[in-house]
Amino acid sequence: MDILDIIKNRRSIRKYQKKEVPKEVIKDILTAAFYAPSAGNARTFEFVVIDDKEILGKIPKIHPYAAMCAFADKAIVVCGNLDKEKYDGFWSQDCSAATENLLLMAHALGVGSVWCGIYPEKDRVESFKKLLNLPKAVIPFAICPLGYPDESHQSKERYNEDAVFYNSYSKD
Amino acid sequence: MDILDIIKNRRSIRKYQKKEVPKEVIKDILTAAFYAPSAGNARTFEFVVIDDKEILGKIPKIHPYAAMCAFADKAIVVCGNLDKEKYDGFWSQDCSAATENLLLMAHALGVGSVWCGIYPEKDRVESFKKLLNLPKAVIPFAICPLGYPDESHQSKERYNEDAVFYNSYSKD
Repeated sequence: MDILDIIKNRRSIRKYQKKEVPKEVIKDILTAAFYAPSAGNARTFEFVVIDDKEILGKIPKIHPYAAMCAFADKAIVVCGNLDKEKYDGFWSQDCSAATENLLLMAHALGVGSVWCGIYPEKDRVESFKKLLNLPKAVIPFAICPLGYPDESHQSKERYNEDAVFYNSYSKD
Repeated sequence: MDILDIIKNRRSIRKYQKKEVPKEVIKDILTAAFYAPSAGNARTFEFVVIDDKEILGKIPKIHPYAAMCAFADKAIVVCGNLDKEKYDGFWSQDCSAATENLLLMAHALGVGSVWCGIYPEKDRVESFKKLLNLPKAVIPFAICPLGYPDESHQSKERYNEDAVFYNSYSKD
């Protein structure tokens, strides 16, 4: 697959088959995430893989848009460790780039996922901190359920000339 | 190229050949950026392509780590339009995912780039707003110079088992 096809055809997948996502696949997905760029190469990202069904089952109660996690084989919580930050305020950008790599890699390996935002919603951050026993400096950023897709969506055109400008924010 | 190879071998490139990056290549790079996921599918990102050498030449004065822009063929400023936001506080994550797609696509097409952060540094945000005549609701997020590489860097191993946890933030 061409990378532009992978990028274009990745869609949010919220329904999964009852089929295991093997450890080797998880490792490739995490590897892609680890190679994300980060401010000052600080690599502030850390990952909590959830494969305990009891824990997955608790997620719908603490996140309003992540009910599908209860039916996923696994989930990865992308976290930012503030103690690793070199440039203040950039850790969430590191984590976003890592999350995007994670989603692209999952899709390329046939695994469905969806980016469920945690940070900056305070209630979600506190609930996930408790659920996963995160220390003070580690902020849960997003949760991505993982499972082989049981739905598919066609991609629509997203290139938008109206949102492209040259040298100045003006269409003249 | 395999997507994991593209992700692993993408590095920050700060030295460029004096060679034009054609419009078709810019369009593919922007297309990849437009297909980034966004909170509520709000697609808050907008892009200012800079190909005016005079404007590129002014960037080293307003960004402490983007001097290489003066020697790049072009640069893309990724911006977030707050008027398009559906979920407050998530626009910078949309822009981060778009920036990562942009960098991956550039690398896949043989074009070098580097993510130079603008937001949340207030001075940089204000300076880029003036330089590009951005309206109030449009926040400059990052600038990525683009040029055919005149340097190369080998990738080092970045998978870090110490930053991977299972079900709980504990290594026991």
